[in-house]
Amino acid sequence: MKHLELLDTTLRDGAQAEGISFSVADKLAIVETLDALGIPLIEAGNPGSNPKDLAFFEAIASRPPARARLAAFGATCRPKLAPADDPNLQSLMQAGTDVVVIFGKSWNLHVTEVLRTTLAENLRIIRETVAWLVARNKRVIFDAEHFFDGWKSSPDYALQAVAAAAEAGADVVCLCETNGGCFPDEVARGTAEVVARLAGQAAVGIHTHNDAGLGIANGLAAVAAGATHLQGTLAGFGERCGNANLAGLIGNLQLKLGYACIPEANLPMLTAAVRRVAEIANITLADDMPFVGRKAFAHKAGMHMDGVKKCSVSFEHIPPDAVGNARRFLMSEVAGRSAVLDRIRALAPGVDKHDPVVERVVKRLKEMENEGYQFEGADGSFELLVRKALGTYKPFFTLERFRILGERPSPTPEVGSVAMVKIIVGEAEEVTAEEGNGPVNALDRSLRKALYRFYPRLAEAHLTDYKVRVLNGTAAAAAKVRVLIESTDGKRAWSTVGVSTDIIEASWIALVDSVECKLIHDAEDASAGA
Amino acid sequence: MKHLELLDTTLRDGAQAEGISFSVADKLAIVETLDALGIPLIEAGNPGSNPKDLAFFEAIASRPPARARLAAFGATCRPKLAPADDPNLQSLMQAGTDVVVIFGKSWNLHVTEVLRTTLAENLRIIRETVAWLVARNKRVIFDAEHFFDGWKSSPDYALQAVAAAAEAGADVVCLCETNGGCFPDEVARGTAEVVARLAGQAAVGIHTHNDAGLGIANGLAAVAAGATHLQGTLAGFGERCGNANLAGLIGNLQLKLGYACIPEANLPMLTAAVRRVAEIANITLADDMPFVGRKAFAHKAGMHMDGVKKCSVSFEHIPPDAVGNARRFLMSEVAGRSAVLDRIRALAPGVDKHDPVVERVVKRLKEMENEGYQFEGADGSFELLVRKALGTYKPFFTLERFRILGERPSPTPEVGSVAMVKIIVGEAEEVTAEEGNGPVNALDRSLRKALYRFYPRLAEAHLTDYKVRVLNGTAAAAAKVRVLIESTDGKRAWSTVGVSTDIIEASWIALVDSVECKLIHDAEDASAGA
Repeated sequence: MKHLELLDTTLRDGAQAEGISFSVADKLAIVETLDALGIPLIEAGNPGSNPKDLAFFEAIASRPPARARLAAFGATCRPKLAPADDPNLQSLMQAGTDVVVIFGKSWNLHVTEVLRTTLAENLRIIRETVAWLVARNKRVIFDAEHFFDGWKSSPDYALQAVAAAAEAGADVVCLCETNGGCFPDEVARGTAEVVARLAGQAAVGIHTHNDAGLGIANGLAAVAAGATHLQGTLAGFGERCGNANLAGLIGNLQLKLGYACIPEANLPMLTAAVRRVAEIANITLADDMPFVGRKAFAHKAGMHMDGVKKCSVSFEHIPPDAVGNARRFLMSEVAGRSAVLDRIRALAPGVDKHDPVVERVVKRLKEMENEGYQFEGADGSFELLVRKALGTYKPFFTLERFRILGERPSPTPEVGSVAMVKIIVGEAEEVTAEEGNGPVNALDRSLRKALYRFYPRLAEAHLTDYKVRVLNGTAAAAAKVRVLIESTDGKRAWSTVGVSTDIIEASWIALVDSVECKLIHDAEDASAGA
Repeated sequence: MKHLELLDTTLRDGAQAEGISFSVADKLAIVETLDALGIPLIEAGNPGSNPKDLAFFEAIASRPPARARLAAFGATCRPKLAPADDPNLQSLMQAGTDVVVIFGKSWNLHVTEVLRTTLAENLRIIRETVAWLVARNKRVIFDAEHFFDGWKSSPDYALQAVAAAAEAGADVVCLCETNGGCFPDEVARGTAEVVARLAGQAAVGIHTHNDAGLGIANGLAAVAAGATHLQGTLAGFGERCGNANLAGLIGNLQLKLGYACIPEANLPMLTAAVRRVAEIANITLADDMPFVGRKAFAHKAGMHMDGVKKCSVSFEHIPPDAVGNARRFLMSEVAGRSAVLDRIRALAPGVDKHDPVVERVVKRLKEMENEGYQFEGADGSFELLVRKALGTYKPFFTLERFRILGERPSPTPEVGSVAMVKIIVGEAEEVTAEEGNGPVNALDRSLRKALYRFYPRLAEAHLTDYKVRVLNGTAAAAAKVRVLIESTDGKRAWSTVGVSTDIIEASWIALVDSVECKLIHDAEDASAGA
């Protein structure tokens, strides 16, 4: 198998997409996801242009990824400045990564019209910046911005620019199809020329965009022409129409063309990893995304279903489970039993695949997914679902009634809502109320207050994240919403989900699951004598 | 300019996509849109497999498109049947189109495993079906299903199948990359072989799918290899990951490669046509769709904005207005003054960069972003912000009070909330209430109801999307939320934003902005005498 080095830039180029704004916690979660999938290089931010990125590099220093290496991203030094005097390069060093990605100009037009300096000065900039970083023991990946536009406009100059980086010690010269407007035959020819020119001196990489719908095709063309380093974003996030998505590149290169991109055993994690990144970014993935989209193996035409049943390759270019996706016969469902079995065994190790509980869980899962539930990001709620199917679940309380009142103008800006809750625990009733700065906050506070006298250890737990996703956008304010809640008690962390057309009810469902997870774990700890 | 014949199959292959179900009225509206854009051939249904499609052909007979020709779609006759005895072919004739598209098998595996007949019988089927239709004065386009998989598996047989259609009189032999899993180099070689084989006998066409993210690349590869007929769906709708989208193919072929696909003067209608088809289909287009997506020319990184202003080709592969799309400088903290100035000038052309209003808008933008607002996806709210800074804004109503009550258990599952609203318009007051399936829905309905007697044209507008983003995740249920609302009145589309710790208040702010945008535009239309 031929080896390819992948670099994911979701946290840098992806963050330049409209509607994306990652918190430090989001970034840590994405690194964890990419690392688990086996992406070897993660470009994690531009400390020079975004001071918040430095905070991330500080935060991750104490919990580095298990296998992946992080790269900080920055620009070559400014015209007429020595690298040592450029504050952006100093920020880059502060990120403390072994690998740095440095982008520079290779299109003559950009040098004179945008950077507004001379062609010679730009070569000096590239050479000195790369050499300065290499002298500081950095592994340097040089991103040649607009390489292909430059190569079409002035091939000699574009080649001089990449040669300058290679001669100064760049380990990889990555050719960027920045504007996304070139064709695969152009990318193939340009890459082949650079591969020949830099042979023995630097590896050649490729970075493509999707503005002409050719992001993946251009990436493949460069690899066929000899590129051995490949950049993209797992879910395709990026400026304008996005970067080439690594999910599609991995699917094509590793499943069909014999390139090793990620560990072979991790390929079935691909779909879940893409969806998790999208979930963290709060971006709705296109259902028709190649390989990993919800519709990628959905068959609607009767003739297609018939064909797939007789012979799956008749309407499927790969087996869906090769990338962890699932075939769907629309209006006649099929199951993902073995994945479910694994999750059941985590709670009840004795269960075998013929146990009727497996069928019960699969059936309930399907029903709930049809209602808009999604358990990929809600392990706590899924655990409760399994416990209910196993018959080991018993409720800790029941809701008799809640009422919420919101009004504007409100008595004080901090108190816009009040919630009244009545619950029953065993033979006892409790009625209470709390104010909050919104209806969900008021409900959360009043539920905990009502339960406290029965379950004082609830005070250890609190919510750490609360996310809302609108499901069927077209129905607008009448649409279903899915609420995801993350909770912790300092020892454990768990996540729960609720779905309803009413955001308050959806939140209530997820809140109740959160509380029950805490109470179950406490009860188990107690019976284990912990 | 080289000429290419385009065939749009939104109404047939597109209708095989999950979530799409066209009424006869929808189909008529789509035909009108495609015809106005200048697509010459419209594949409009499969009367054999879908009796409703016959109703459409009857309906359109009385209002045929101005320039486009319609094609009916159907299968070759069944094994052991003469074409004259096949009821599906009779339905096809009843559609009454001059052009018919007939699909048949060209992959040996499909013949034996799916169709379950002999290779020789399949050739007989193709030959006799095509000849029968030609004898009835139909122009026949033969769709060779799975041609490339067939050609890779048994090249001789695949070529025999397409030759059989050509010899029997098919005008076009269209090579279908049905499963979407082939690579551009394979498509190029297969197409070139067929072009050579059928030279002088039939034109060669191409039909591709996007399962590997290569739908457009494969279409381009076939055209480069000599295909002169090109099938796809305007917005990319189709089975699984969709068909190659004609918008992207037209953009690449006509703007960059010198092929005539649609009348040159119609190219700037491309974006609006795609969006209209999506609107009719009630499908949300991917914002990052090449050429025509809302994000296709959206610039967020300050360096990119700066580059585009100095020289637009620096980060745009085509001028956005060439396809009727628009450049957008996203209003974010990184946008800077000159982007703001451009937006102010759209409303007040006389403003220069030293006008104090620029500083006021920049300052207000920054303050609101610090509160959690984000205007990159909220052009309507940004417009209101600018109007307020310009002093040209006056409110259409004021809120006296609203109250929302939510309760569980609720009287009925559909009605979980009720909202009471009291507003003042001029000297008049209006108090009203509405129920909803959630608090925001109830509030939206009651606000519109209260305003209706003052502004009856509000009835034209409705929400098309509603998004919620939780801002500072760590505060969990007490966190701030940002609500984004998209609205349309059929003529215009606009988006608005609200931020608060209370989701109801955030929604209220965005709802009010949405209503005000509609009222301002109506007032301006009226004063322009529109």
